[in-house]
Amino acid sequence: MKILLIGASGTLGQAVDRELAPRHEIVRIGHSSGEFQVDIGDSASIRALFERTGRFDALVSATGSVHFGALAEMNEEHYAIGLNNKLMGQVNLLLIGREYANDGASFTLTSGVLSHDPIRFGSSASMVNAALEGFARSAALELPRGLRINVVSPTVLQESMGTYAPYFRGFKPVSAAEAALAYARSVEGAQTGQTYQVP
Amino acid sequence: MKILLIGASGTLGQAVDRELAPRHEIVRIGHSSGEFQVDIGDSASIRALFERTGRFDALVSATGSVHFGALAEMNEEHYAIGLNNKLMGQVNLLLIGREYANDGASFTLTSGVLSHDPIRFGSSASMVNAALEGFARSAALELPRGLRINVVSPTVLQESMGTYAPYFRGFKPVSAAEAALAYARSVEGAQTGQTYQVP
Repeated sequence: MKILLIGASGTLGQAVDRELAPRHEIVRIGHSSGEFQVDIGDSASIRALFERTGRFDALVSATGSVHFGALAEMNEEHYAIGLNNKLMGQVNLLLIGREYANDGASFTLTSGVLSHDPIRFGSSASMVNAALEGFARSAALELPRGLRINVVSPTVLQESMGTYAPYFRGFKPVSAAEAALAYARSVEGAQTGQTYQVP
Repeated sequence: MKILLIGASGTLGQAVDRELAPRHEIVRIGHSSGEFQVDIGDSASIRALFERTGRFDALVSATGSVHFGALAEMNEEHYAIGLNNKLMGQVNLLLIGREYANDGASFTLTSGVLSHDPIRFGSSASMVNAALEGFARSAALELPRGLRINVVSPTVLQESMGTYAPYFRGFKPVSAAEAALAYARSVEGAQTGQTYQVP
């Protein structure tokens, strides 16, 4: 399969790359690195990306920004960051990318544990991650040509605990390599509309 | 309690009114009817509302617009309608309204069955309803002064089946009066961060 991997240089993206590269052609895409660049917060940039990559068999998105901060200090502009980037950025990868997707292609997006297991400072991430999962469940019903969509929802990564540990006390982290298995399950399996929680 | 009821003239709003009015002071608010008017899609309108209503003990929102349509025909602008209105409109009722809320006040927002039980044409509603539930779960952790937030997620209403039946075949509708009980449970109970599914 020809797999577009958005966020290829990130911790998760690199692990997905290692998992899938032995069996597939990986096109590595980043915000500022990789074979192609894209700003997922800008739909024109997304369309320009697909014009350059051409048709594909799977798209994996392991990227997306949200604002982390105290609820007391947040207003609608802070929530707009995650809605425009992690949510609609990834949704636009489907809405625009479907035109370039081969029959039977899959889209695998990334949410995260906060959708159902909240922490302080995570209200925007909880909103956006839950929205992604709700969207995927529903969009899967209507995709034509055997197109599929799933979401991977990893808990905090072992590799990120240096930075995130204070926010995730008591959470058992997973390795990026374990999280990457869920992407393989989505890309190489047959299910659609699923959220794969890791673990 | 002094309860602000947004969407008071709707099917659900009227039922919530009938449930709560015997025990509380209801301030009826609508887009174009009621004692006060508000456009929840406009944060300036929301702030102006609270300046007129003054402080309150509970806010119930039974309103919010999303675009229903075929996934094949939808682009980011269609999703923006629900994100700006049903999602951020209701979230802004909390983000702005908290400044006017008495200690211990509750916010009760409305999502809907499509968050977890999708139908054709409902991808925006599924996204927005799930986002509201995720936000409430997380925001509840950080609200000060005993403030609470819950979401009510009703299935399709009996009173709405004249219009919606073709989209909800096989769904067992509930009466607006039954759905209204969940709002009483949120307002008069003690829980926070909950999604009350009806039934």
